[in-house]
Formats: sequence, structure tokens, C-alpha cells
Amino acid sequence: MAASAPSSSGGDPDPNSANLRPPSTTYDSWCGVAHGCTRKLGMKICGFLQKNNSLEEKSRIVSSFKERQSPKNLLSCENSDRDSRFRRTETDFSNLYARDLLPAKNGEEPTMQFLLEVVDILTNYVRKTFDRSTKVLDFHHPHQLLEGMEGFNLELSDQPESLEQILVDCRDTLKYGVRTGHPRFFNQLSTGLDIIGLAGEWLTSTANTNMFTYEIAPVFVLMEQLTLKKMREIIGWPGGDGDGIFSPGGAISNMYSVMVARYKYFPEVKTKGMSAAPKLVLFTSEHSHYSVKKAGAALGFGTENVILLNCDERGRVIPADLEAKVLDAKQKGYVPLFVNATAGTTVYGAFDPINDIADICEKYNMWLHVDGAWGGGLLMSRKHRHKLSGIERANSVTWNPHKMMGVPLQCSAILVREKGLLQGCNQMCAGYLFQPDKQYDVTYDTGDKAIQCGRHVDIFKFWLMWKAKGTIGFEQHINKCLDLSEYLYTKIKNREGYEMVFEGEPQHTNVCFWYIPPSLRGMPDGEERRERLHKVAPKIKAMMMESGSTMVGYQPQGDKVNFFRMVISNPAAARSDIDFLTDEIERLGQDL
Amino acid sequence: MAASAPSSSGGDPDPNSANLRPPSTTYDSWCGVAHGCTRKLGMKICGFLQKNNSLEEKSRIVSSFKERQSPKNLLSCENSDRDSRFRRTETDFSNLYARDLLPAKNGEEPTMQFLLEVVDILTNYVRKTFDRSTKVLDFHHPHQLLEGMEGFNLELSDQPESLEQILVDCRDTLKYGVRTGHPRFFNQLSTGLDIIGLAGEWLTSTANTNMFTYEIAPVFVLMEQLTLKKMREIIGWPGGDGDGIFSPGGAISNMYSVMVARYKYFPEVKTKGMSAAPKLVLFTSEHSHYSVKKAGAALGFGTENVILLNCDERGRVIPADLEAKVLDAKQKGYVPLFVNATAGTTVYGAFDPINDIADICEKYNMWLHVDGAWGGGLLMSRKHRHKLSGIERANSVTWNPHKMMGVPLQCSAILVREKGLLQGCNQMCAGYLFQPDKQYDVTYDTGDKAIQCGRHVDIFKFWLMWKAKGTIGFEQHINKCLDLSEYLYTKIKNREGYEMVFEGEPQHTNVCFWYIPPSLRGMPDGEERRERLHKVAPKIKAMMMESGSTMVGYQPQGDKVNFFRMVISNPAAARSDIDFLTDEIERLGQDL
Repeated sequence: MAASAPSSSGGDPDPNSANLRPPSTTYDSWCGVAHGCTRKLGMKICGFLQKNNSLEEKSRIVSSFKERQSPKNLLSCENSDRDSRFRRTETDFSNLYARDLLPAKNGEEPTMQFLLEVVDILTNYVRKTFDRSTKVLDFHHPHQLLEGMEGFNLELSDQPESLEQILVDCRDTLKYGVRTGHPRFFNQLSTGLDIIGLAGEWLTSTANTNMFTYEIAPVFVLMEQLTLKKMREIIGWPGGDGDGIFSPGGAISNMYSVMVARYKYFPEVKTKGMSAAPKLVLFTSEHSHYSVKKAGAALGFGTENVILLNCDERGRVIPADLEAKVLDAKQKGYVPLFVNATAGTTVYGAFDPINDIADICEKYNMWLHVDGAWGGGLLMSRKHRHKLSGIERANSVTWNPHKMMGVPLQCSAILVREKGLLQGCNQMCAGYLFQPDKQYDVTYDTGDKAIQCGRHVDIFKFWLMWKAKGTIGFEQHINKCLDLSEYLYTKIKNREGYEMVFEGEPQHTNVCFWYIPPSLRGMPDGEERRERLHKVAPKIKAMMMESGSTMVGYQPQGDKVNFFRMVISNPAAARSDIDFLTDEIERLGQDL
Repeated sequence: MAASAPSSSGGDPDPNSANLRPPSTTYDSWCGVAHGCTRKLGMKICGFLQKNNSLEEKSRIVSSFKERQSPKNLLSCENSDRDSRFRRTETDFSNLYARDLLPAKNGEEPTMQFLLEVVDILTNYVRKTFDRSTKVLDFHHPHQLLEGMEGFNLELSDQPESLEQILVDCRDTLKYGVRTGHPRFFNQLSTGLDIIGLAGEWLTSTANTNMFTYEIAPVFVLMEQLTLKKMREIIGWPGGDGDGIFSPGGAISNMYSVMVARYKYFPEVKTKGMSAAPKLVLFTSEHSHYSVKKAGAALGFGTENVILLNCDERGRVIPADLEAKVLDAKQKGYVPLFVNATAGTTVYGAFDPINDIADICEKYNMWLHVDGAWGGGLLMSRKHRHKLSGIERANSVTWNPHKMMGVPLQCSAILVREKGLLQGCNQMCAGYLFQPDKQYDVTYDTGDKAIQCGRHVDIFKFWLMWKAKGTIGFEQHINKCLDLSEYLYTKIKNREGYEMVFEGEPQHTNVCFWYIPPSLRGMPDGEERRERLHKVAPKIKAMMMESGSTMVGYQPQGDKVNFFRMVISNPAAARSDIDFLTDEIERLGQDL
């Protein structure tokens, strides 16, 4: 491991020498300036001065680099320059432009300095994200940001901006954004900032390749294959057999499941269209994610043919309702094709009873999909995986490591039990990509399984996190988040000013509750109370965002007025953050 | 701009003190070790030793950090430590794990050191990518990589690996990958490694957020809006009006165009399914991208109802063939819905005559989509944009900045002339995301336009590049790549051993040619020559990949046997690289 300290510079900058531009533009005078730098950089600059054609360009670029030093430092530190390549110099970026970076001639030094400056901005951001004294966000309305904030102008122009402005833009973009990794950001199912995952994404962007062929993504294609197999083993499919692909999010993964189900039962739809099939219906619960309906609309089923199933008070499908609706559809001449069971609903965090649903699917010969986008992560926990009991009977599973497992966005897998369906359903055998006469085993060219052509590399960050944490690391992460939500539930279930949206301990980290301000506490249930209560969560949320202290989601559900949905997927959160959230809700809501 | 030199360390490492572990584990003895470091870090370590509970954990972590120095350096360099946070120390990562990083207590120092080490790996990779003495790839067959290469094991395990192993994995992942930014990588439409775009992706991963709402991506949502408007202005839609979204690749963008066209003419399909519409047909050329057929299959039209249009010798649609096929379809009772015109075909780089096609679309009331995934970038060039003449008449346009404009993967836009269709077509109004009672203007919540739910932030890198290069920077990039392909075309069109696949100067950077080995040069045209020629490109390509010197694509097309398709989208390429490619083809192919 070649880890080594930076070296050979130090001391204070000489303010008088910044942006120094000698009047003469001869080679010698510039080389004189260059020699003022440390030995290696000076030699480099002199070297390129000798080769370079445009003297003005030289002047501009040379004058941008300067290392801080005093003669004393030169004497004491110059003996080690092997790491000088990894050393930030005091660079004047106001005089440098994108065109000065690689692949420009002599672009290496400005490139390295620019990237290190960016990394400084990013590592500062990372550091502050975990610092609870930092705000979660610095809220501004759209019109405010559009009007421009002190030097941060979103408009694009014909002429280039200097790298100094680009660095300012990077800082401002982060400043006016939302710190989704902050320990007090509870607004979404995907939260947290995993350092290994982050490193994985940085590497992925640097590799800048595409998943369609082994030819240009050999390592990533194999990582995807191995990781998907591991996931199928964890689901419980014998030998980890089956198929799968990483897709751009859970909605697309769910769409894949419907496509594959249709292809399995009515393969002629691929060539002849929906008119070749009988009238098909899909089933999913009223609490399930809207992406099943979206898939129904996109794929030509129609949203009216996505039949919503009733749920119990806890948001779990009532299996008898499924069977009744299947029989009803059949009676009306429809063919029941597909049932989606949700493992971890978006709002309540409910787990549908998969085994009961699987029985009905087997009885009526329907495809069983489990949408585990949110709850799939619980499979990694020996303590909690029983909530997905029966998942091994599914024909397909959506599982988003970017949610409960803390992998950076995006990372969503669609897993299919029967091999070959994904390929059969989607392949078009494009000659320019999937040549059969390559020198390697072309079964590793997995791109034709996808509805995409180019496909982003979503696997590496996840693979790297798995290596770094181990299966047990994910288990600990998940158990910790569930413990925290239990802490919140226990804390508020009998606390004055709180009402739970449903009875009993949540199955996932979703804790759904109303905060009842003192002014509403004595009021009898009725339309007025409902109307006023409906406005409480949005008002508190707005104040939270204005103050930037924390963020948590709210929504209505069925006939229930707006309530808070607390979710925890960030391992940076601690009990003190839960306490902070309830304190904040009470502080902001007490006078409503 | 706070750019400053690293400071306060230097000199050679003391090999004897690496991994030093004193036998005693009391606070004082550890603090003694810590004081051996520079002042600031030492104080930090002592500080956390006093707070920390587990002495063993302390020992393990403290012993991992060490700065290289001699007493002399301490004296001379210690006066400036304001940048010590941005200084790599000699860290023993073999004893550190993911669990030691943030959010772990005292995780900041290991986190920073780990990230800096990763950045060192990445900047080295960047540097080498532009170095022509570096290979484009280090080819291994799937079974070789699966068996494991000297310490690079792809298998995942239950237990965590040390950060040292994680860093090794990062290096090996890059080592066995393909350098898509290398000046001699010509294999795909997306090549190059833009430094500003790279910085943009690093920032995007660090921000780790999602495009569905303004609430959690305020800056990115506005950047997307402004950039899409700019793109629509460049297309030529009055006032830049219209709609659009960035999608996960050109295939999905093309799918959007078909969905939106269907919704425009037959909105009831959204709720009732394809059976509510008459039998619809789509038109696209035999040279167009396979994603139009893929969309036809997925959306329930059926691939047989995607009618392929004949092209001229150059790969451009013959408008009369479109009209004839429209009439034929109508006569058979089909309803012609949608025509795709390609601006820059995948293989030949051909531009369909948009104006002629638009006339026919207007005459028969069909939706006109322009697939400019590959050729859309030419709109940025005053010299070349005439090739897309008529694009302002399109109803929708696909345009992938990740291809000809050098933006890192992925960055693809679907642009729609009529406002409201995307939203109408896709919206499901999920209450948990798109609450109407938010405190800001919720028309900025654009997520419900998408078929995705979560959507990766693809805009920032593109916006940042536009800022940094200006419109004129993209123009120069594009002109340069087209000049290079003209150079190649001029060089080989009359050269012995080359045959062009089609006559005349290419419209885009695609140069399609056969290399004829000496053994085939005298042979009369016929089945034997065709069979042998068909094998030439795959053989040369295989040898190129084995030697790692360069990469270029090949494929058959229609009745034409395998030929090379050269494409240039990387501004790092120079004429010398074109010369290198032809030399390499001739060297590898001479004895075939």
C-alpha cells in the first residue's frame, strides 16, 4: 500500500508574489519564474516552455501556479518530492479554463490542482454532513434561486467561465442543496452518505463506462453477475439460480416484472402487441407503490386494469380480497396475470403476507412479484427477515439496495426466478453491439436483457460496500435502524400530543403519527378537527424547512388526514436525533 | 478562492516506525505516540483518546495514523497547519474497516485519509488515461477474472474486508477495466473523460439526492429546467417553450416519445389500455436504433407494428418509402401514429431528411420524433447543424449529451414541443411525494412526469460543463471531432487495402470501411471472398483487444459483411491517433 505524506513545501504564502506577471515574455524570464517554484514543478514548467508554441498561453498558465514556501522550507523539505503530484499548490483558477485541463498539452498540472480543489470542497461537505451543528438545508424558494444568489447564477452562456467560477458554482450547488446524509434528514426512504459507497461512485464516474457488453465493462459485468446471484441466494431460490439486472430505480424494476410476466404467459405480445392477448388484469394493494399503476399505463394494460386490493388497518393486503377479485375478474372475462405483493409499503412500511398470496397465485396460475424495493433489505437481517417469509416463492423480486441498505443512488435490482425470460422478453440482437463472433464468451454481454441500451454502472458501489461491510455489516445497519424506529414508537405511542396512525409496533422503520397541537387536544373528533389537523403537518414541515433543522415527510392516506411518516435508513442517526425530531415538532407545533 | 499549499510535513519516512504499536495501552502512552505526530493531528488524537471508551479500539485506530517527518521538518514546517485537514498521512489501512469511517465516533480522520487515498488512485488513473503509453485495456477472459487475479477476488463474503483490501480492489477494478477516455478508444459513441464532467459526477455522488421533488433537489431541479429550455431554444422551438426530462439513456428517451405520442392521440390508453385504441403502427428506418422496436415491444404495440423504412445507400430514409408504407398501412386498417427520423444513425452516422419526413407527418397527422441521441450534438455547431435542418418541426427529440458532447454517462434528454403531455401521460399523483400543500411552488416538483420514481441527478455534470466550456466550447469539440473523421476518411478512401462501405464523405464522425488483407486483394468478389472478409474485422478486433493497443467497433449491416465502424467523440484524440489506428489495423491484418 503506497500511502505517503505530502512533502517538500510549507510555510506561509508570500502575498506579494500571487499572480505575479513579469513584464518580459521571453522564455528565460518565464523560466526564472518557474524556478521560483519547487524543483520538480519548476523543471516541468521549464520543459513545457521550451516545447510550447504560444508564449501568451504559457504566461497565463504558468502564472496560475505557485507554491507557498520560504527559502527555509525549500532547504528543509525539498529532499522528498515523490508525492508532489498529490500536492495542492496555490493555484490562481481565475486565469484557468476548462480548455487548459487534460487533454490539453501541459494540462496535467492544472487538472490535478483542479480535481484536488474539488475534492477539498467535497470532503468539507462530507465532514459537515455528519456534523449536527450544520443545517440539513438552507431553504430558498425557486424564484429566489432563479434570480441568482450572490454570484451563483444558473444561466448558461456562450462563453466559458473560469475554473474559479466553476469552483464557486460547485460550492454554491452544495450550499443550496439538501444534505440527504445528515443524521437528521428523515424525509425519504433513501438517506445517508456511506463513505465506501461514495468512493465507489467516484470510481464509477472515473471509469465512465457502460454495462451493455463485457467488452467495455468486464469487471463490472462480472460483479453484477456475482452480486445478483448472492441476492438470489438470500431470497432463497435454489442455488441462487435465476436471472436479474440492475435498473434505474424501483419503478423500472417493477415495470420489468410486469413485462416479464406478460412475456412468460403471452410471448406473442412482444411481436404482435397487446391485441394478441386476452384482456389482462394486474393486482396490487391500495397501499402499494404507484409504479405498478404506472407500469400498467405505460405497457398498454391501462390503469383501470390494475386492480387495487383492500388492506387491513396496518396496510397489509387481505388475501381473501385478492381471491375474491381474481374470481370476479375471471367471471367478467378477464385473465388475471400478475399479483404484486409489497414487502415494506412506502407509507406504513407494511409487509403483505407473501405465503398466503403465493397460495392464491399458484391456485390461479398467476405471476407473483414481490416489490421489496423498500423492505428487501430486511432479508439481510436474521432478526427481521421472517417478515418476508414466502419470498422464495415469488417469480420476481424488486430490491433496492439504495434504500434500506444505504447504497448511494441509484441501485435497484430486478430479480427473476426463471432464467432466460428477461433476455427473451427484451432482446433485439443489435448487430453493432452484440456481435456473436467475439473472441470471448458472449453470454456475458448482458445488455440485451435491458429495456435500456446504455446502462449506468450501478453495481460497483454496492459490491464495494458489501466487500467492506460484509453481509454482517448490512445486518447491523438494518438492525440498528429498526431499533431506532422502535425507540421512536415506544417514546411517542403514549405521549401527550401524539396519535398513532395505526395500532401496534411498525413492521419496518416507518412510524406514522399525528402531532396534535395543544389547541386541538380537547376538541372532539369531527370535520373541524380533521380540517385543522390536516394543516398541522404541512405547517410544521414548512417551518422545519425554513429553519433547516430537520426534515421528515408527511402525507394523507385514504381517509386519513395529513400525518407524519418517519423513516430511518441512515445509520448516522442516533437516539438523540430522534429526540431532536420530536422536540422540534413540539417546538414548532405548540402554537398551531 | 481558498487554494493553499499543504504544509507542515515533509522528509523521508522512518521505516522503523511504520505500524508502531507500543506494548502499553494506557492513555498516556498512546498520547505520547500521538504527540509524535504534527501538533494539530496529535492534539486531535489526544482529544479523542480522552473521550473514547474502548481502549482497544483506540489503539487500533491510533496506530493506523502516522505522519512522515523528521525533527527538522517539525521545526521548519509546523508554523502553518491550516490545511492539515487536507493532508494525507501515512495510514495503515490494514487495520481499519468501514465501521471506523464516518458516522463512527472519531471517524473523521480515517474518512478523510481513506477518501484522499481513493482520490490518489483516481487521479493516477485519470493521468494515465491521457497517456498514450498506457494501454487501452488489459484484456482477460471472464473465466480468468472469475477465478481471481492475484489478490483480486470478486466473491462477496459475510465478514468485512479491511480498507487496505478495499483500496486494492479499487485499483484492480480500474486495472482490469477499459479506459474509455483513452485517446485511442474508438469503440463506442460515448468516449472521452471530461475533467469538468468528472468533477460534476463526483459532486453529484456526494450530494446523493434524487430528482423527484424540488424539496430535496432544489438546485438540480432548476438546473434541469434551465438546461432543457436552452436545448429547446437550440432545437428552434419558439421561446424555448415545451417540456422535457433527463432520462436513463437514449432508449428510454425514445420510449418516452412513443408513450407521449400515444397519449396525445389516444389518451384513453392510459386508463383503458391498448384495446381502447385502433391498431397503431410506428415507422422507423432499417438503419435506426433498435430502441424504437424495443419500445414497440414494451409498450404493447408489438414489433411487427414497428414498420421499417428503406434507406438509400448512405443509410438515410427514403421519404417516398415512408409515404407508400403509410398509405399501405391505412389501407389495411391500421392507424399510422408515429414516425422516428434519426439524426445520426448508429452505424453509418446518417441524418434522415427531417423536412421531407415532417411534410409527410403533417399530411397524415402523425407524431414526428427525431432520435438525435447521437447526432443531436451537432446542433451546437454552426458549421454542422444544417444536417438536422427541420428538427424544429419535430414533436419530440431525443438528444444525448453523453455521446457527441462528451458528458459522462448517463445524460440523455427527451424534449417535447407541447407542454403538459409528459405530465399528463405519466402522472399518478402519489400523495407521499407530491403533496399539493407544500410551502413552495409545487410546479417545480417534476417527478410525476417520469416513468421512474427516484431519478438520478444527470443534469449537474452537464450544466457544469456548459458553464465551463460555454456553448462555443461544445462547438469547438464537435467541429474538432468531425475534422478528425474527415482526416480519416480522406486518408483511407483511396488507400490500398481499404474499401469504403458507402460512397461519399460521412455526415457524422462515423467512418465505415473494410480492411482488405493482402491475401484478399486480388480475389474476385464472390461467396468465398465475402466469407473470408467477414472474418477479418473480428480477428483484428480480437488481436487489438489482446494487445490492448486500441479499440474500434465492427458489425455487419444488411447484406454487408463485417466492417469497421470508426467513431470519434473524444476530443483527446489527435491525427496521430487516427494514424495509429490504421497502422495497427494494417499490422494486425497483414497476414490474415
